[in-house]
Amino acid sequence: MTTTARRGRPRDEGTDARILAAAYELLLERGYERYSMDEVAQRAGVAKTTLYRRWPTKDHLVVAVVAKIQDDVPVTDTGDIRHDLVTYLAAIVAGLDRMRRVGRPATPDDRSAGLVAEITAAAARHPDVGEAVRALFARRNALPLALLESARARGDLRPDARPDLLFDALAGAVYYRLLITGEPFDGDYAAELVDQVLAGARAL
Amino acid sequence: MTTTARRGRPRDEGTDARILAAAYELLLERGYERYSMDEVAQRAGVAKTTLYRRWPTKDHLVVAVVAKIQDDVPVTDTGDIRHDLVTYLAAIVAGLDRMRRVGRPATPDDRSAGLVAEITAAAARHPDVGEAVRALFARRNALPLALLESARARGDLRPDARPDLLFDALAGAVYYRLLITGEPFDGDYAAELVDQVLAGARAL
Repeated sequence: MTTTARRGRPRDEGTDARILAAAYELLLERGYERYSMDEVAQRAGVAKTTLYRRWPTKDHLVVAVVAKIQDDVPVTDTGDIRHDLVTYLAAIVAGLDRMRRVGRPATPDDRSAGLVAEITAAAARHPDVGEAVRALFARRNALPLALLESARARGDLRPDARPDLLFDALAGAVYYRLLITGEPFDGDYAAELVDQVLAGARAL
Repeated sequence: MTTTARRGRPRDEGTDARILAAAYELLLERGYERYSMDEVAQRAGVAKTTLYRRWPTKDHLVVAVVAKIQDDVPVTDTGDIRHDLVTYLAAIVAGLDRMRRVGRPATPDDRSAGLVAEITAAAARHPDVGEAVRALFARRNALPLALLESARARGDLRPDARPDLLFDALAGAVYYRLLITGEPFDGDYAAELVDQVLAGARAL
């Protein structure tokens, strides 16, 4: 029996999806500081206990929303490492740019990292949220790391290429710009970054 | 006349330095959430008005403390770009590791980004703090960018090397590890990272 009645509401496999969709909608409307667990439960049509059993705080729920957003970014190995890395990083740039604007009016010169910085701070403040964020990134980053491993295995990358360091450099550049320097992502940032890191800086 | 008496205290050129030293000490002892402007003024031996005239909130003051810490990291152009980048990044890694632990007990498996994440969030939340953080990094990053420019000018880096992207990749990798994945900086992380980015990933 996979369905049990709780407080008159059916518990079905779509409950998680409904909660995450409601949380994302409310985040978009209200922003991080002004969305509440009670409203999420109400909008998703679930009992508060159902919500809190899955995600004990709004920080945990935000991490789950981010995981969902990340899982919607496909990672495909076409055999062309440059193409695949550019596609992946461009999707990360677009996703982070949406996420940072969550709950705030769109103004052209806004350089705040918004929700991305709030999640970073929540992860630093609460050990269990930090654990959840790190587990999320370990799981997701395995995909681009596998792209790099596979390119090295077929001889497209140097034998001494280090996927872990290369991925830190590529993803790190994007997060650094967003969280620290606030520089906008002009033109074809993802492609230019990938080309620099693949080509290397040293004169031959 | 450069010295004026305010509430019986002399205003001298060491006032900023005393305030910043007191703020850093209190941050180390209490951490970000539990240090207060009043205590900083008391410990520095300055009137509250003196403190607030310079830095209107504790967030502004933290940014000034971070600027001071960063300015204590020397950036030297020895003519060996690998050496200079490794030295610089190793100092950044050490400085960030100290800063993230501010106000928290030292435990070996602590992977929180601590104060670094709090500053990131404060910059995202308050436009003027964000402006101050971005100005600080623009000023400081000009130094390693000049190292890269100079290495390109003397032919040690490729003519099409992009200092801005290379620096994003190098500094970004360090911040990404600290703020997002929480991976520790094992072994000789700075040297291995610089070698990967200088060598490039693509097979020749």
